[in-house]
Amino acid sequence: MGGSPPPYRVVQRKRDGEELSASEIREFLQAYSSGRVEDYHMAAFLMAVYFRGLSAGELNAFVETMMRSGEVADLGAIPGVKVDKHSTGGVGDKVSLVLAPLVASLGVVVPMMSGRGLGHSGGTVDKLETIPGFRTDLSLRTFREQLARIGCALIAQTDEIAPLDRRLYALRDVTATVESIPLIASSIMSKKLAEGIDALVLDVKVGNGAFIPDPGRAEELARTMISIGTMYGRRVVALMTAMDRPLGHAVGNALEVAEAIAALKGGGPQDLREITLALAGEMLVLAQVAATSAEGRVRAAGALDDGRALECMQRIVGAQGGDVSVLADPSRLPRAPVLRELRADRSGLVESMDVRAIGQAAVALGAGRTTLDAAIDPAVGFVIPAKPGDPAVAGQTLAWIHARTAAAADRAEAALRSAIRLGDRAAEPLPLIGRRITAADGVVS
Amino acid sequence: MGGSPPPYRVVQRKRDGEELSASEIREFLQAYSSGRVEDYHMAAFLMAVYFRGLSAGELNAFVETMMRSGEVADLGAIPGVKVDKHSTGGVGDKVSLVLAPLVASLGVVVPMMSGRGLGHSGGTVDKLETIPGFRTDLSLRTFREQLARIGCALIAQTDEIAPLDRRLYALRDVTATVESIPLIASSIMSKKLAEGIDALVLDVKVGNGAFIPDPGRAEELARTMISIGTMYGRRVVALMTAMDRPLGHAVGNALEVAEAIAALKGGGPQDLREITLALAGEMLVLAQVAATSAEGRVRAAGALDDGRALECMQRIVGAQGGDVSVLADPSRLPRAPVLRELRADRSGLVESMDVRAIGQAAVALGAGRTTLDAAIDPAVGFVIPAKPGDPAVAGQTLAWIHARTAAAADRAEAALRSAIRLGDRAAEPLPLIGRRITAADGVVS
Repeated sequence: MGGSPPPYRVVQRKRDGEELSASEIREFLQAYSSGRVEDYHMAAFLMAVYFRGLSAGELNAFVETMMRSGEVADLGAIPGVKVDKHSTGGVGDKVSLVLAPLVASLGVVVPMMSGRGLGHSGGTVDKLETIPGFRTDLSLRTFREQLARIGCALIAQTDEIAPLDRRLYALRDVTATVESIPLIASSIMSKKLAEGIDALVLDVKVGNGAFIPDPGRAEELARTMISIGTMYGRRVVALMTAMDRPLGHAVGNALEVAEAIAALKGGGPQDLREITLALAGEMLVLAQVAATSAEGRVRAAGALDDGRALECMQRIVGAQGGDVSVLADPSRLPRAPVLRELRADRSGLVESMDVRAIGQAAVALGAGRTTLDAAIDPAVGFVIPAKPGDPAVAGQTLAWIHARTAAAADRAEAALRSAIRLGDRAAEPLPLIGRRITAADGVVS
Repeated sequence: MGGSPPPYRVVQRKRDGEELSASEIREFLQAYSSGRVEDYHMAAFLMAVYFRGLSAGELNAFVETMMRSGEVADLGAIPGVKVDKHSTGGVGDKVSLVLAPLVASLGVVVPMMSGRGLGHSGGTVDKLETIPGFRTDLSLRTFREQLARIGCALIAQTDEIAPLDRRLYALRDVTATVESIPLIASSIMSKKLAEGIDALVLDVKVGNGAFIPDPGRAEELARTMISIGTMYGRRVVALMTAMDRPLGHAVGNALEVAEAIAALKGGGPQDLREITLALAGEMLVLAQVAATSAEGRVRAAGALDDGRALECMQRIVGAQGGDVSVLADPSRLPRAPVLRELRADRSGLVESMDVRAIGQAAVALGAGRTTLDAAIDPAVGFVIPAKPGDPAVAGQTLAWIHARTAAAADRAEAALRSAIRLGDRAAEPLPLIGRRITAADGVVS
């Protein structure tokens, strides 16, 4: 007979747990790109993948086809090891804003492409754009030039990178097929491989605010991404980090930029500094700038404390058209008109936090979006100094709410009050930095 | 908030095994009818149903919404119990052509709506249309009038009956979500309930040529359909029958009509007569014409042998515009130009038959279709007198092939030679008529 099997046969075989060949996966995805496979075929296929998973060979073909659906950046002309970081996303995660200039200030090339926020977690691009004038829509050519000149660029994923992944993600978003480990892993890795990196550090979140809350499944995701990287000869290391509380204190775009600037000056919340230094240590080892992650961590702490990281950020902001004076004076960032204090209504302990609910409350304020084309309010959000396990005294400040209107602040206050649970017995919080996973830890089949 | 949940939430909840409320199912399906739920949402939902099933409440809401998506025939003005038969479909299954006039000749009203063939199994409507002039596209009004006058009408499912089921079936067909027991059961039963019947006999096929080959799953399908009928106060009985060989000898439209005519005259293959009488016995009990199925069977045999069944068929063919002389002289039916004999290439036994392959070989000759709008060749097909377990002598006729061209006959001969397996040890064939299942046998949850 010859030719490709009809689309329903590909769906049927995946549904029945049969293994598809690399060429079948490739042809099915390419036929989707060219319109011969319809959205409804793909929706059924993705749901079958949700239940059946992908074999190593299928996963590889999936990544390869998505990666090659657009441009694959060639950074070979830029000297040095190119290392990026990817986080699976969480509430208050502004690490990239500190980490990228920090590691670049130590001589590593950091080609960082980020996304916008969607759902309960924020996005680095939205945060950067609260700096007046800052442009994230650089072409691949400008991106390469800036990397060669400054060693770091912080840009939005361009339309040139993995367009098939973008189309598949939009379909997954409306068909409840987002939360599939091989689909998440292939989506992330196809984009990262297309960026032209040599090595990658993964910050894989666990806990109730994480995309995949369960630590076992989150580890499986980490291993799957590492196995994909290994197949392409890229070194990939993952740290499992805590998302049973927001990262740092600030949640909301301009508020998080201000907190990141504090960290770039050697200050800021302790947990933000700790995670940033741990990830920096790994990146410096991958870039062969440090022999061990402990050594890398020490060097990174020095660059935060002596101003080198901040200086690099100044160069990046300047190069990308942003108002550099914001770094000296973060009060120039957008500010919300309503400031509301949330106080503890009893004494005891912060028992636990519903981090997803905190993220959703921030979205409700306007800090995030539920559909990809919605606008955000850069100024609104929360500052939550409290952490699970902390003692609380009645009347003490638990959080500040930055809102556009008093009514929005009312709703946020009610949401935060039930999300920050006070009581007498705190659950054991997750370790801030959990397992470190490398290719040596084995591959998931 | 209020209003319906977004489509992806309905898909997500089904994916996660949560139970949807009746109103959620109804609103989701109605939103699909009105275009607010897209094909890709529904495709993902159907695949999630394939893996997760439907609860009794979900199933009921599914059936109800599909049934009420079109007209529900009211046959209340016609005296007598209205009883139909539905077969899950197989190769050579021409039982309806014999059974409907037979049971009607004994005073039962048989409102039979049938489908066209799709895939490896044939359809009653395609067979009837090989009788010159025979019209199956009666309106519901003409259908009712003929039922009142003759007691039987053999028509195609009209566009007025369960249009939502038709749209869902077309989507299932291209997204590999056909083989789901609750989806099959709700599709069949929503149409049958919309026909206005009081009772229903199900002929549920098992064996390698059946839609659902596995006897356990086929029984589950039978119980699911019975439970739906019971919810609507309809009496439903199922017989499990063998589809590890074609039913009767003829496979192909005009060839099957000729065989059905022979059966209506008291002749024809023994297995066709046996299954027809067993189903007739059940229908006569459901119609309260016979006290027991054994008594019904005897009365039905009498009506085949004394010409009453044939006479009823003459009235039906006449009323629906068909050439009645075909019943007296089946050689007036369309005939294929090429007749090829397939002979046994060794002595021994007919070990087994790949019935699905036989059906697919008939489709390849032109007797069936792989897409709903394709045309068929009424004349082509097979006559296969051999049955599994039969002795075979080298050179003996195993089958006759009726083809349009010699090349088509060559291909069919090769396909049949591998589908009819000769050897020395025959597998035990399935019992022609297996379990009888009623509402008393319990409901599948």
